[in-house]
Amino acid sequence: MDHPTAHRYEQLADLITGMIEKGTLAPGERLPSLRAVCEQHRISLSTALQAYRLLEQRGVLIARPQSGFYVNAAHATSFALPSASRGRSKPSTVSIGGAVAHLLEYASNTSLVPLGCAVPDAALLQAAKLDRTLSRLARTQGGDANIYSAPRGERSLRQALAQRAMRVGHALSADDILITCGCTEALALALSAVAQRGDAVAIESPTYFGLLHTLEALGLKAFEMPTSPTAGIDVAALSRLLDAETISACVLSSSFNNPLGSTMPEANKRALLDVLQAHDVPLIEDDTYGELHFGRERPRPFIALDGGANTLYCSSFSKSIAPGYRVGWIAGGRHMARVIERKLAFSLCGAVLPQRALAEFLATGAYDTHLRRVRRIFQDNLARMTRAVEASFPVDTKASRPEGGFVLWLELSRKIDTRALFDAALEHGICFAPGDVFSASRRFRHCLRLSAGYSWTPQIESGVHTLGRLAREMSSD
Amino acid sequence: MDHPTAHRYEQLADLITGMIEKGTLAPGERLPSLRAVCEQHRISLSTALQAYRLLEQRGVLIARPQSGFYVNAAHATSFALPSASRGRSKPSTVSIGGAVAHLLEYASNTSLVPLGCAVPDAALLQAAKLDRTLSRLARTQGGDANIYSAPRGERSLRQALAQRAMRVGHALSADDILITCGCTEALALALSAVAQRGDAVAIESPTYFGLLHTLEALGLKAFEMPTSPTAGIDVAALSRLLDAETISACVLSSSFNNPLGSTMPEANKRALLDVLQAHDVPLIEDDTYGELHFGRERPRPFIALDGGANTLYCSSFSKSIAPGYRVGWIAGGRHMARVIERKLAFSLCGAVLPQRALAEFLATGAYDTHLRRVRRIFQDNLARMTRAVEASFPVDTKASRPEGGFVLWLELSRKIDTRALFDAALEHGICFAPGDVFSASRRFRHCLRLSAGYSWTPQIESGVHTLGRLAREMSSD
Repeated sequence: MDHPTAHRYEQLADLITGMIEKGTLAPGERLPSLRAVCEQHRISLSTALQAYRLLEQRGVLIARPQSGFYVNAAHATSFALPSASRGRSKPSTVSIGGAVAHLLEYASNTSLVPLGCAVPDAALLQAAKLDRTLSRLARTQGGDANIYSAPRGERSLRQALAQRAMRVGHALSADDILITCGCTEALALALSAVAQRGDAVAIESPTYFGLLHTLEALGLKAFEMPTSPTAGIDVAALSRLLDAETISACVLSSSFNNPLGSTMPEANKRALLDVLQAHDVPLIEDDTYGELHFGRERPRPFIALDGGANTLYCSSFSKSIAPGYRVGWIAGGRHMARVIERKLAFSLCGAVLPQRALAEFLATGAYDTHLRRVRRIFQDNLARMTRAVEASFPVDTKASRPEGGFVLWLELSRKIDTRALFDAALEHGICFAPGDVFSASRRFRHCLRLSAGYSWTPQIESGVHTLGRLAREMSSD
Repeated sequence: MDHPTAHRYEQLADLITGMIEKGTLAPGERLPSLRAVCEQHRISLSTALQAYRLLEQRGVLIARPQSGFYVNAAHATSFALPSASRGRSKPSTVSIGGAVAHLLEYASNTSLVPLGCAVPDAALLQAAKLDRTLSRLARTQGGDANIYSAPRGERSLRQALAQRAMRVGHALSADDILITCGCTEALALALSAVAQRGDAVAIESPTYFGLLHTLEALGLKAFEMPTSPTAGIDVAALSRLLDAETISACVLSSSFNNPLGSTMPEANKRALLDVLQAHDVPLIEDDTYGELHFGRERPRPFIALDGGANTLYCSSFSKSIAPGYRVGWIAGGRHMARVIERKLAFSLCGAVLPQRALAEFLATGAYDTHLRRVRRIFQDNLARMTRAVEASFPVDTKASRPEGGFVLWLELSRKIDTRALFDAALEHGICFAPGDVFSASRRFRHCLRLSAGYSWTPQIESGVHTLGRLAREMSSD
């Protein structure tokens, strides 16, 4: 279990949310009184109140003075899910650099409402404890650490990561792991280990634009696969593609992919692994968001299902605790020798002290405590953002329902060009990510991604409302 | 000027060394008395004595009790210089990974006499002041620094580097520089910005095996150019090559290259730039060792001579202060846009706090104080190592005479295979770098590189003597 000490009030909140989703509690229906809940679940009044208040914050319940708590009718009539994307029969030569650079220029501009950049805010992450560990190690172990680490990276961190892998049922040794400069380098090493310039890979659509950027730099073509906002990549379509085309790798997110937030059911994951195995095509999985799950269970990555037979696993600490440290990792399985060679050739090894600080942070259990806190914040942020979107965007807007991570994907009417919306939003001091940067063939021009990685503020809420108003205006033009 | 506050005794030592090299002071000749030197140079007795003792340590002078200081005759009869290498008319497909991995496996083994790895020892570098800066910043700026930096890296460090570039006469702005994960990443970015898989580049021969490794991973072929142990790459030969072949880049060391330690005269550097300019071939220069000069003047890198018109400049802090920090940089000139794209695609950006610590360390002047100390130590180490080699290796051994850096290149009789010597040395607990890893075509099998990057100890001295004895035994077989 990943968070065995989850608070009772969170457990109750999850239970109530489940009842609403299943229709056991109807929109507008009054909830049992706090006293009744206390007796039923054998909990204290304050715990029950905490659960109700949490759901009120998330917009699931509304409180009526002198009356009690009710299922929020607005919540129940939430926007439809975005459509599953369709596949493209031809591979795309990737040329995304310019569009991404244009976005990044604004995404890091701190004077804008920060809905553009999928990196959590330092104020939300509160990594002071990790920084104090780094501070102490720099003072006490600086001399000892002023060396080139082994190519794989610091053993203490690799051991801590191997122990965490055990929790999802995957047996790894420290030597099966190589530390990288974030997940970007992990993906670049994985791709360059299994694919050559001119080769094609299969990817989710929409997908993280950073991956498209890496594909472009390595000269790789992309088959964009149909992808569902709930169940992820379409396994049957992938199977048909592999029957027809030569593919060097399939690259996808393990869970809560960016930007869709979709989560493949484990049966689909197994089916996908079977399909790849049958065609001897390696899987490169990006599990950056795996630890940011809202449900009780951490979804298992592919590598835990196939034992690493044909999977290159990539992840990082950038979204969960330390974007400033640039520490990621890769478990390259049978491709590990080539991964190590590429690491030596591209960047030799990583900085020693940040790795040791993270190793210690993990070993003390501080990382687990930290993750419980940020998961709750991201979940709340996404609930508030969803409510703000529903209150302001056109009624035909479709919105993703991520069960982890901190990004929201919106599909607008095809009349709306989100590049034009982007320019209009900039004039109002608001940044977001327009949909076309998530596709090698520049699809999704009527879609956009909002990031909920910042502490929720009235300024952010009002930014979403303004964006919704701009979209409504464009919609009615 | 790079070290305006060089000590008077060092200046006097340099002067005397120059007189010996020019023959003004002959081998065995007695030096002026300390009293005479004091009067002549208007210095104190202790300063004069300090200079003589320094030269005694370096093996340049010998002290005879009750008699005075004499020019060391053994020093004057030093081994001949290694031959200039010859060019190869065909490019080599690089396949060095296995051999390098084999070496690195032993080079990091701390139980061996450490002559194999060209990284300075942490005990020699004494970077505690830098570590304390990092410690303080982690405590006080951790939250502020827990972000993705701009792709180019922290502005404060880029500004400090731009100011240092001014000292060698090259005007750079902070935006002309991108921070990398050591010089390895800088070279990988430079190469991938100007060359495609299958292209050929011109390189020094012998050259740093890490460069060969990077060429292999990028699928680049190498033309190995004739290179002199004093004057570097043969400009006329390069000119002929460019007339005959299509070359994507020339890659070489700015100064004190690894392993030869050669330094191109500035006139040759200008001639080389002219040749490259005429053929519109970019130069990628690696200036990692440039700050580790023994002479008064820091040699100017190529970029300071051509104003960056056609040069991609790469360097790092790994050899001079902080191998454990993994901070290097690149000034990509007109190729900068592609360099930035490659950085985004391969590793996104670097860790923030180590960059800020280095920026502060540079800004306070602490780095200059540090460099003066380590230059003197490296010079002493190389002098001692040269003496130990001359006392123990076969008389037909040829030895480089580096004027900077900390590696020595030895050319033995062609009868000796330094791979066999490597195996024999390992049995005596000694590691060095055999010559063939410095060539794409596995030349230099009768050569080897010794590193003087560790604090000099009787164990190291005895290790060199043992190595020399093993070479003598092989030589007489």
